[in-house]
Amino acid sequence: MNEKIRIGILGYGNLGRGVELALRQNPDMEQVAFFTRRDPSSVNTLSPSIPVYGVDALLAMKDEIDVLILCGGSATDLPKQSPEYAKNFHIVDSFDNHSKIPEHFDACDAAAKSGGKIAFISGGWDPGMFSLQRLLGNCILPQGKDYTFWGKGVSQGHSDAIRRIEGVLDAKQYTVPVEDALARVRAGEDPVLSTREKHTRECFVVAKEGADLARIEQEIKTMPAYFADYDTTVNFITKEELLRDHAGIPHGGFVLRSGVTGDGTRQMIEYSLKLGSNPEFTASVLVACARAVYRLGKRGEVGARTIFDLPPALLSMKDGAALRKELL
Amino acid sequence: MNEKIRIGILGYGNLGRGVELALRQNPDMEQVAFFTRRDPSSVNTLSPSIPVYGVDALLAMKDEIDVLILCGGSATDLPKQSPEYAKNFHIVDSFDNHSKIPEHFDACDAAAKSGGKIAFISGGWDPGMFSLQRLLGNCILPQGKDYTFWGKGVSQGHSDAIRRIEGVLDAKQYTVPVEDALARVRAGEDPVLSTREKHTRECFVVAKEGADLARIEQEIKTMPAYFADYDTTVNFITKEELLRDHAGIPHGGFVLRSGVTGDGTRQMIEYSLKLGSNPEFTASVLVACARAVYRLGKRGEVGARTIFDLPPALLSMKDGAALRKELL
Repeated sequence: MNEKIRIGILGYGNLGRGVELALRQNPDMEQVAFFTRRDPSSVNTLSPSIPVYGVDALLAMKDEIDVLILCGGSATDLPKQSPEYAKNFHIVDSFDNHSKIPEHFDACDAAAKSGGKIAFISGGWDPGMFSLQRLLGNCILPQGKDYTFWGKGVSQGHSDAIRRIEGVLDAKQYTVPVEDALARVRAGEDPVLSTREKHTRECFVVAKEGADLARIEQEIKTMPAYFADYDTTVNFITKEELLRDHAGIPHGGFVLRSGVTGDGTRQMIEYSLKLGSNPEFTASVLVACARAVYRLGKRGEVGARTIFDLPPALLSMKDGAALRKELL
Repeated sequence: MNEKIRIGILGYGNLGRGVELALRQNPDMEQVAFFTRRDPSSVNTLSPSIPVYGVDALLAMKDEIDVLILCGGSATDLPKQSPEYAKNFHIVDSFDNHSKIPEHFDACDAAAKSGGKIAFISGGWDPGMFSLQRLLGNCILPQGKDYTFWGKGVSQGHSDAIRRIEGVLDAKQYTVPVEDALARVRAGEDPVLSTREKHTRECFVVAKEGADLARIEQEIKTMPAYFADYDTTVNFITKEELLRDHAGIPHGGFVLRSGVTGDGTRQMIEYSLKLGSNPEFTASVLVACARAVYRLGKRGEVGARTIFDLPPALLSMKDGAALRKELL
């Protein structure tokens, strides 16, 4: 084996921990350090032998890190961090604000080009693997329709929105695909589906003692953008039940391309994920992408990239001959 | 739109006709001509305005064809044709003899390099899209198991094998995945499955009048390599029933990657195809790959390539910015 690919992790929440764990499954990589905006001594990782540094230490370690994986959030962290660090590091991020991807790409592209680096953005599963499946489906079946269903899984954003309601102690929200809608797509009906027809929302809420449950339920169900357009179920449970039954962060979903070839011949492509842990899976994608980024960098390429731009073989530990023999 | 990509089709069976039809769905391409080893006047295509030439006319049309799609068979046609034509044309083939892919790749690589061309081999769905899904699954979930199930669909090779039996007029063989095995994989059991446990084989046979049906059934069920290792059902039907109920060439299947991240978290990736026409779908993949090959050629790349080597964006009619905006 060649020299190992040296990885830095910036940010240590669920995603950062997922990257830490994924790196253990990839023997051609090694983790150099964690970087955090918190007090490093307050961060307890799963890898006591790997140092935790403050974010200020990053730039000085430029030559010791081949790829920096950014594990911050898409709302405020990545729009700032990705272009900033792409000037000095090959980076990988999981920027997932779909409508802002074009501007994020442009900002990262300019930064990466100015520093002679590769900035890989929007890794993960949606955007990420789901996007790739949408692209492939569109290319193979130009006459067809796309369908993406999410779930069953925990939406962090919707859970947070519920927690902000007066009288709520804690909450977990599941996005659930409507089985009947999925069945109609699979049957080749090419239905036109409204937001309400595609997904339902299930909420598990821990309320403060004495809180007005009817008012909380009403506030959830009528919340614009988050719940108003969906059929929403609200279940009040105890804190113990929430911890016992809803501790995980599962997710998943379905991407379908329903198309027609020739003289009306039906063709159906379906891709689905059933993820025990959303952040661990996302992290696993980021780590594979980091390998590809390292190799693109070695070739002297610069600028922003997405999953659409990566020759898939670059994601693998194996060389081309082994891949053709074993997997083609 | 730029100049159209000019495509030649060599061979006009089910796959050639599929390519002819797929090109009609891809407005950035145009078909220049058909080439055949038969008497051109005996070939009736679906496109009367596109000329049919003998294969001898090919070389002289070198400068009028951007990509030549080879639609012959993998047993005897492609091992000869692909390296031969890769010296003078960018080619795309659907070579599907898995065990011989490495040597086919090497032969095409040498030929393509000698002529400064790109030779894309083994396009289609298996090898092809299924291979890509196996690769992605392995890269994202290094700790896991691969499963590929085929069907329900028509196996041309197995149908042909039955037709060669004395007393058989015609036959169609379906490969059928065992639902229970698929269910166990989806449940995360990671079962070890024998050949017999993964697929069954259903045969529909038209026998000659007075033929010994018991002997035919016995010969099918005990045929080494083709049927002996499977639970096989043999149904004798009339020629009319075969034409009425078994005229299509459907196929499909499933690729699953069952993996584990972190501390035993289960993650499942599933890709499936339900194809009304196997050759039309395969042809649609080849056409998308031809676009990528054309672009690689424009970049000055040379040599053999597979689906593992293609940046997915090159498969699309759309440019990078549109893809990021619409599909990422």
